[in-house]
Amino acid sequence: MSNDEEMVVTPWEVRGEVDYDKLIRQFGTQPITDQLLKRLKKQVGKLHLQLRRRLFFSHRDLDTVLDLYEKGKRFVLYTGRGPSGPVHVGHLVPWIFTKYLQDKFKTNLYFQMTDDEKFVIEQDLRIEETTKYAYDNALDLIALGFQPRNTYIIFDIKDIALLYDIALEVAKRITFSTAKAVFGFQDSTNIGWIFWPAIQAVPCFIHAKLTGENVPSLIPAAIDQDPYWRITRDIAPKLGYQKPAQVHCRFVPGLGKGGKMSASEPETCIFTVDSPSTVKKKIWNAFTGGKPTVEEQRRLGGEPELCTIYQYFLYLFEQNDEKLADLVRQCKAGETVCGDCKAILTERVTKFLLEHQKKREKAKDKVEEFYIMR
Amino acid sequence: MSNDEEMVVTPWEVRGEVDYDKLIRQFGTQPITDQLLKRLKKQVGKLHLQLRRRLFFSHRDLDTVLDLYEKGKRFVLYTGRGPSGPVHVGHLVPWIFTKYLQDKFKTNLYFQMTDDEKFVIEQDLRIEETTKYAYDNALDLIALGFQPRNTYIIFDIKDIALLYDIALEVAKRITFSTAKAVFGFQDSTNIGWIFWPAIQAVPCFIHAKLTGENVPSLIPAAIDQDPYWRITRDIAPKLGYQKPAQVHCRFVPGLGKGGKMSASEPETCIFTVDSPSTVKKKIWNAFTGGKPTVEEQRRLGGEPELCTIYQYFLYLFEQNDEKLADLVRQCKAGETVCGDCKAILTERVTKFLLEHQKKREKAKDKVEEFYIMR
Repeated sequence: MSNDEEMVVTPWEVRGEVDYDKLIRQFGTQPITDQLLKRLKKQVGKLHLQLRRRLFFSHRDLDTVLDLYEKGKRFVLYTGRGPSGPVHVGHLVPWIFTKYLQDKFKTNLYFQMTDDEKFVIEQDLRIEETTKYAYDNALDLIALGFQPRNTYIIFDIKDIALLYDIALEVAKRITFSTAKAVFGFQDSTNIGWIFWPAIQAVPCFIHAKLTGENVPSLIPAAIDQDPYWRITRDIAPKLGYQKPAQVHCRFVPGLGKGGKMSASEPETCIFTVDSPSTVKKKIWNAFTGGKPTVEEQRRLGGEPELCTIYQYFLYLFEQNDEKLADLVRQCKAGETVCGDCKAILTERVTKFLLEHQKKREKAKDKVEEFYIMR
Repeated sequence: MSNDEEMVVTPWEVRGEVDYDKLIRQFGTQPITDQLLKRLKKQVGKLHLQLRRRLFFSHRDLDTVLDLYEKGKRFVLYTGRGPSGPVHVGHLVPWIFTKYLQDKFKTNLYFQMTDDEKFVIEQDLRIEETTKYAYDNALDLIALGFQPRNTYIIFDIKDIALLYDIALEVAKRITFSTAKAVFGFQDSTNIGWIFWPAIQAVPCFIHAKLTGENVPSLIPAAIDQDPYWRITRDIAPKLGYQKPAQVHCRFVPGLGKGGKMSASEPETCIFTVDSPSTVKKKIWNAFTGGKPTVEEQRRLGGEPELCTIYQYFLYLFEQNDEKLADLVRQCKAGETVCGDCKAILTERVTKFLLEHQKKREKAKDKVEEFYIMR
């Protein structure tokens, strides 16, 4: 990834060096300000590390949702996953944040498994594969501690009967021209992919459809997904629904050079089902901000801002802010070498995953309890 | 309708004077030749009047289906209806022909009520309306004598769970570019409409999906619907299905000048629920090929080829070919005046509809027996 490559961020492609301030301006979203964090803190007590560390950095109407909440009005959470492969640790990051919001605000979560999207978008993926991944990925979600009493998983293909009428209402109000401008569709785009944004809009309104309670949804997701709900926000009032609000997070970096993470390059991601030895190997091969030799590292110090190992601490594996700052300081001062950090991270990830894998195994008996059409 | 207006025939628009030979060339279909009629006659005995009178005039692969049938292989029938309003007598014409094919070849019929299509296409139509019409229109189909044992009605919105996976398979293989070329989609077309051809393709394969028996479907329909299955025929082999075959009929003319019929001008159509007095009034006001005065008519004779009343005899209400020829001869010779024909037609349509309305009423108790998801 070179600095001079133009930044491209769409729901299907992230390319070039990402400038998050520029994204806020480009997408027309709002930054999460200190003031807004203060308001949140008043509601929830301690701020989640993903807020403290500005990993969630942008929003639409989070303030409006808080206004309503302070007046005693509810909202619901909606997020999802495109099941085109196994879940890696990066995928868990926004889900963990979603769980935090759910616990603090005591809300329902609607979670969409977009098996239909992945099928129409990915040339070589078959329906049997994407529906299998959808089930498999749900195990990772459930393993994070979500409860059936307020968590509803939508499997698009299985649950299409629930989604289709609202999807038609949405689709009728989106011209190809709009879809082209917002998503960059081309003449070579297939008509399933072109229709699909209508399906992605539906969970924003599904709570209202199922319960009659017309409350807004708040969507925690990576900012590349924003275009979907930008359109949905325009249409919601025409259908008599509340506009969905959003909180946007950064892209979770991988272990490759430049923080690249791609399921097609499995050595750049740690999958939730990886064995301890695989985890160790992947972390040991990760791209860091360290110097080529120990001697240079001791003399010049490392560059945590380039280091993928550091990102893992930042996002999930060092919850203590002071200790995180220590890691940075020690690295820059040349007091630690990459092997030190890699050893600590390997231990923490391994411990986390062994625990996660146990819960994931238990989740197999419970998936149906989470079906929205239960 | 003026002769110099350019002919436009798409699934949503028929404009200008229709030249059926030109349509065969434009669409690249095959004419139903005398030889093909002879083959059909060997299979079915007497040819239906809609074949004898060349109302069904074009086809794709009807000969292939007959080849298979002669070798003991089955096929199924598929046709449908866009439920955007009440059914008029013109709609019954291809359904009556379909019933004839079903009886002669002892096949299953899959009948698609495209409530989703009509909703996304017609600006002012609501989902509640189109689903209500779908149910209501099914009564007219059932009143024609179809039986639940081999007739399966698909209500798109209700039955989307059955259709969606195959629709995705089809949609993945149609680019916007192709859809634009085949259907004339534009930038202002909504994304629901753009996706919809994938749904229209599904019933071609639904028998194979439900029974595992991979047989071709034969689709009797007006020729304007051909583009849908032209695309479907390209895709079928890629999905491992048989290409659908088609027989194409002419557009059933209405009672307005130039044979125009439009549900938005109700006086140009006879609806199946019209009362005898309404029928009488509509027929009495119909555009004919008669002369302005009785004296002129007696002296110069009329022009049946311009006459909408004649078309009603041709399509349905004079089953006897010799009597039909007599009607033409007498009109041209000035032996009859328009009032004579109008009186005969009024009597026949009224009798037909009173009977139809009774069966339609009884159908209300039976609709669910025809549900494909029964």
